[in-house]
Amino acid sequence: MRAHLDCIPCFLRQALQAVRFTTMNEEIHEKVLRKVITVLQEIDWKQTPPQIARIVHKIVRDETGELDPYSKVKQEYNDIALELYPSLKEKVKTAKNPLFTAVQLAIAGNIIDFGPKSKFNLTQTISKVLNTPFKINHFSKFVEVLSTTQSLVYLGDNTGEIVFDKLLLETILERYKIERIRFAVKGAPIINDATIEDAKYVGLDKIPGLEFIKIGIGIPGSGLERWDTRFLKILRDSNMVISKGQGNYEALSDQKGIFFLLLAKCPVIARDLGVEVGDIVLKGV
Amino acid sequence: MRAHLDCIPCFLRQALQAVRFTTMNEEIHEKVLRKVITVLQEIDWKQTPPQIARIVHKIVRDETGELDPYSKVKQEYNDIALELYPSLKEKVKTAKNPLFTAVQLAIAGNIIDFGPKSKFNLTQTISKVLNTPFKINHFSKFVEVLSTTQSLVYLGDNTGEIVFDKLLLETILERYKIERIRFAVKGAPIINDATIEDAKYVGLDKIPGLEFIKIGIGIPGSGLERWDTRFLKILRDSNMVISKGQGNYEALSDQKGIFFLLLAKCPVIARDLGVEVGDIVLKGV
Repeated sequence: MRAHLDCIPCFLRQALQAVRFTTMNEEIHEKVLRKVITVLQEIDWKQTPPQIARIVHKIVRDETGELDPYSKVKQEYNDIALELYPSLKEKVKTAKNPLFTAVQLAIAGNIIDFGPKSKFNLTQTISKVLNTPFKINHFSKFVEVLSTTQSLVYLGDNTGEIVFDKLLLETILERYKIERIRFAVKGAPIINDATIEDAKYVGLDKIPGLEFIKIGIGIPGSGLERWDTRFLKILRDSNMVISKGQGNYEALSDQKGIFFLLLAKCPVIARDLGVEVGDIVLKGV
Repeated sequence: MRAHLDCIPCFLRQALQAVRFTTMNEEIHEKVLRKVITVLQEIDWKQTPPQIARIVHKIVRDETGELDPYSKVKQEYNDIALELYPSLKEKVKTAKNPLFTAVQLAIAGNIIDFGPKSKFNLTQTISKVLNTPFKINHFSKFVEVLSTTQSLVYLGDNTGEIVFDKLLLETILERYKIERIRFAVKGAPIINDATIEDAKYVGLDKIPGLEFIKIGIGIPGSGLERWDTRFLKILRDSNMVISKGQGNYEALSDQKGIFFLLLAKCPVIARDLGVEVGDIVLKGV
């Protein structure tokens, strides 16, 4: 999905948020904002939002010297989600359809996203997602593909949210024999996306058969970019791809055979999916 | 009040909205957005938001050749408000405190603002403002000053909203003998602000003793800018100044002796006032 003109002001807002996480110095805030404006002015806007985002966040990193502006909120939401985990696990166990409940919770966890906006209410979102029909619901197709899957690629998204992903993977493994799970994290910090350290912190490495792959964010050595043919080959070679969140959708919406699990949190993505902001999406056909 | 860094992405959003009102051509949308970015990059951000806004909206006018991008929604909201007028008039007449109800309605009408965002619900806002305590409430001071006023300056804001202003002025004139009312409109179209044509369309020119003054928007001949000493002298020379909306607050918040009636619609102004977005404000001390 190509960036939309509406993404441009949104990138400025995001840069401002990121730099404010690193310092209270307003001169630095203005310096970063001006630099982002200059660069946005120069680049081609016909890229995907994640392609532009990595340029924007590189400026914040370079100008502030802070490699992980969101580190504090990342840690905070990993801990909040870990605290919720036992009660969520119980909710899944006692559900009529545990797999569907685990999918619902994995989508609810996608609210923990500092990209589109900085205010969200996790517990309200969980309760809303558990009680609201999905706007796009390809769950039966999801189960059908899952039942014949040996090799799964799971594209993770944010810190905190990965605790919900862990619960979904555990619920899947109790029902289906998946031999190989490749869980994609970001190869370096960007916004509040989960890295391998976050994933290990919440215990994703304890999932049997799970190995990590790294998604690049424009930093050398951070991993394969989502538009790299070698990355796309990994997706094609697996039996099933589960993709979490807006960023992965933005980068991969033109690829076939991916199950996109997300909350539509911005008007551009909502429009692309044909849904409204706030809608719940499991799209896989 | 100086522009805040958060205003910068907001100006881009506003430019995009304005150009979309004039044409569906996305190439023109991008061209305008890039031009606005270039200019924002060059200018001093330590101006008030209305000072920057007139630069931004001049670009939209120049690039599209459209002098009044918001003309359609302006007409629409003048008509919607005129349709509501009889029932609002009745509400004021039968109220316990008609003047306070008229003030409440004048503030509720301030929701008709395409500057901060494009979605709002007028009837819901009316009902909310009538049933919610003001966050800042200097109404008794407002009445006190009004009771000794012969010469009033009323700084209008948006189309549609001016119908609510008319109702407030009528309600005032039924109670107090004001000899001279100078009602300020914009000297040329900007966003959905009311011009003299809009004011006449809703019948403001029928208010006894009312004459119009024009606020400049950076177009030669459009009137005195709000930061012009001659304009400030007009305010000082009157017994009372009633100022509607965010733009007038942004331009004049450092001036003493003005009653600001507004809904806080953006986080920057809410912070400056020490209130929350959505709060109702009558500030006059």
